[in-house]
Amino acid sequence: MIKKVLIANRGEIAVRIIRACHELGIETVSIYSEADQDSLHRKLATESYCIGPKLSKDSYLDMIGIITIAESTGCDAIHPGYGFLAENSDFAEMCETSNLNFIGPMSETISLMGVKDVAKQTMKEANVPTVPGSDGVVESLEDAYKVAEEIGFPIIIKASYGGGGKGIRIARNKEELKQNYKLTEQEAESAFGNKSLYIEKYIENFRHVEIQVLGDYHGNVVHLGERDCTVQRRMQKLVEEAPSPVISKETRQEMGETAVRAAKSIDYIGAGTIEFIYDLNEHKFYFMEMNTRIQVEHPVTEMITGIDLVKAQIQVAAHEPLAFKQEDIEFKGHAFEFRINAENPYKNFMPSAGKITEFLQPGGFGVRMDTASYQGYTIPPFYDSMIAKLIVHGSDRDDALKTARRALSEFYIGGIDTTIPFHQRLLENKAFINNDYNTNFLAEEDIMK
Amino acid sequence: MIKKVLIANRGEIAVRIIRACHELGIETVSIYSEADQDSLHRKLATESYCIGPKLSKDSYLDMIGIITIAESTGCDAIHPGYGFLAENSDFAEMCETSNLNFIGPMSETISLMGVKDVAKQTMKEANVPTVPGSDGVVESLEDAYKVAEEIGFPIIIKASYGGGGKGIRIARNKEELKQNYKLTEQEAESAFGNKSLYIEKYIENFRHVEIQVLGDYHGNVVHLGERDCTVQRRMQKLVEEAPSPVISKETRQEMGETAVRAAKSIDYIGAGTIEFIYDLNEHKFYFMEMNTRIQVEHPVTEMITGIDLVKAQIQVAAHEPLAFKQEDIEFKGHAFEFRINAENPYKNFMPSAGKITEFLQPGGFGVRMDTASYQGYTIPPFYDSMIAKLIVHGSDRDDALKTARRALSEFYIGGIDTTIPFHQRLLENKAFINNDYNTNFLAEEDIMK
Repeated sequence: MIKKVLIANRGEIAVRIIRACHELGIETVSIYSEADQDSLHRKLATESYCIGPKLSKDSYLDMIGIITIAESTGCDAIHPGYGFLAENSDFAEMCETSNLNFIGPMSETISLMGVKDVAKQTMKEANVPTVPGSDGVVESLEDAYKVAEEIGFPIIIKASYGGGGKGIRIARNKEELKQNYKLTEQEAESAFGNKSLYIEKYIENFRHVEIQVLGDYHGNVVHLGERDCTVQRRMQKLVEEAPSPVISKETRQEMGETAVRAAKSIDYIGAGTIEFIYDLNEHKFYFMEMNTRIQVEHPVTEMITGIDLVKAQIQVAAHEPLAFKQEDIEFKGHAFEFRINAENPYKNFMPSAGKITEFLQPGGFGVRMDTASYQGYTIPPFYDSMIAKLIVHGSDRDDALKTARRALSEFYIGGIDTTIPFHQRLLENKAFINNDYNTNFLAEEDIMK
Repeated sequence: MIKKVLIANRGEIAVRIIRACHELGIETVSIYSEADQDSLHRKLATESYCIGPKLSKDSYLDMIGIITIAESTGCDAIHPGYGFLAENSDFAEMCETSNLNFIGPMSETISLMGVKDVAKQTMKEANVPTVPGSDGVVESLEDAYKVAEEIGFPIIIKASYGGGGKGIRIARNKEELKQNYKLTEQEAESAFGNKSLYIEKYIENFRHVEIQVLGDYHGNVVHLGERDCTVQRRMQKLVEEAPSPVISKETRQEMGETAVRAAKSIDYIGAGTIEFIYDLNEHKFYFMEMNTRIQVEHPVTEMITGIDLVKAQIQVAAHEPLAFKQEDIEFKGHAFEFRINAENPYKNFMPSAGKITEFLQPGGFGVRMDTASYQGYTIPPFYDSMIAKLIVHGSDRDDALKTARRALSEFYIGGIDTTIPFHQRLLENKAFINNDYNTNFLAEEDIMK
């Protein structure tokens, strides 16, 4: 049993977790920085405490401060949300040693999947398809040459401890490999404190397709289908949908089974996501990485399955067996999520913090809103720019697109710039409508022109 | 094909219809009274026009004015919503003669179902169970005595042209029948301009269970399951749910088939509702009346079927065949609708118009909001007091109740009184939770005490 949860996060995901807890009859403790005094996650929780100054490192990343509040308020569990401490194995371990139930996988699992080349090697051993490349890190440029010759150019050089689009470089020939090897090594050293690199075949024409999995303490692992997150800008997802409109029924089943096998191979507990590269030329998929947390885009899966993933996370953490078997999970219709960011899409997505003077939300049939924003709220400039998630559901992709266009047209946020116009342009874009795009879509086409 | 629809209504249902039209690629024309200049239904429509002064009779009931605007703006159809002109057969007929597609049944169908004793007689002939009583109107008090002797007391005296809880009286013996016959006759004469009365056996312990039907111009009629609307205050529904938690699977099927038979017998076109009395003592159901319009509570049916009823209405009016057969309609989970009225539940539901100073909507998993209200909006005192509909969906009744409690707890409307506290009390009420109540529930128990 879990009775009281501290939510080590802010904004919409903190609100999302509070909602799940309250529906389960669990009390909540919010933490908020000095910049988040008026935030909704503070107001909606059973109790809330200021954790520190505005900067994340002094507040939402203050591991000892967070655990101290959890202990002093009688919490028995901590939900980390996404970002901040969600994939910090040290924090998960601190929770474990403090007898606080960390709502997520074991700290060792976070560690294992956190180092990219180790994760890849682990998956390869579990018979999960991986992109051809070096077995683990390359020791030297000479080593890199050898691997490149074996797998053929173009290749991609990746930092083992990389993330967020940093520490990644492409090489199309030996000369580029020489140059970029050194540059990536320097970047890895300075950004991640570790210069380990590994090499992979570079797949140019692919979609980002990921599988949601859920595992419990009783040996059960299920998948909840895939999400297609190919619409990205500088490695940041902007729109997600479920199911993926480009994979076949057979690929879907194979990908789901592969994800379950992957999760089982590491005794995965809780909600996780196996991200795959889906090669549009070869119609094959390869393991990209595993995210050991609830993801921003989890609602699209909830919309097509009817399963509340955050509640499932909490129930699993309380050692309950999963309430459903693989064969009980049915997929119905099509869902999209649009990330509404406080950014100006006409000015290269420049951040636009400030006061929301008007906030007219869409609603009605097929519309779900997940947000911590409201009219009169001032968005602080210190955190992630996402201020709302608009989620729509329809009987099929076309139907969901119609609901999406309607909902976006009635969504009015005054006082700040948002990505709403970007999404509206996207929904009129032929390549997007016809699924004729890959992860390079927004790099190649400026849809705001 | 329908290209442009005038919406002859206001508030949330006008917004609901605008949304359906826009998703179908249909343009919309809103009409608004002088009191509704700031209303959302005005802002969201493609075009909008002032129809007249604040009083409904000078604006939303101005049939000629409405048809003139529809014609001058190039509309090819009119959606009447519910209330106002939705069940006015004269208006439907005016539309028909003006070559405007009235989105609803034929004017004769509205007439036929509008006179209560005629509707009942029609249904009886179609082999739909009806409450024992007079065959049509009673001619005199003597006649009434005879019928009462046949069916036994208590009986109910009803005005043929009655509605909205007026023109109805109970008699438990011959003396009461004598008194109330005259009183009801007088009330019917003054309120409805027609003193015709009919008599029925009075069923004291019943639930209000209604079946949603859809018929098209191609002879197809389907039902979309039932709604339970037993929580009423002075004949006004406050909370509705689907499915009904008190009827058996067999009754559900029989009721559905009966409703389809009823609708087929009158060649019903569009969305309609057959209301039944479900006798809790005898476990039998009887025809109560038919509503020939979209109903306030239609979203609960949409939540469990995934079918957009307003879109279906429009498609049927455009002579499209229904997009689904009876066997395609699946029911999933449980839904509730809570009518949020601008009324003070602590003061006998006294109306509370005024400015909404804060409007914090609930959201997230399983929550749908249908409203035309927003922060800064001033609710005019001239119309219906309902300002929002909170709709929740869960995997079963208990799950939906948990989501409902959570959603209501985070719903904050400042500046006016609302029925939110009433709903919160209701959701803690044992009789409600355990389904141990009938239509007299709120008359017998003051849950606000």
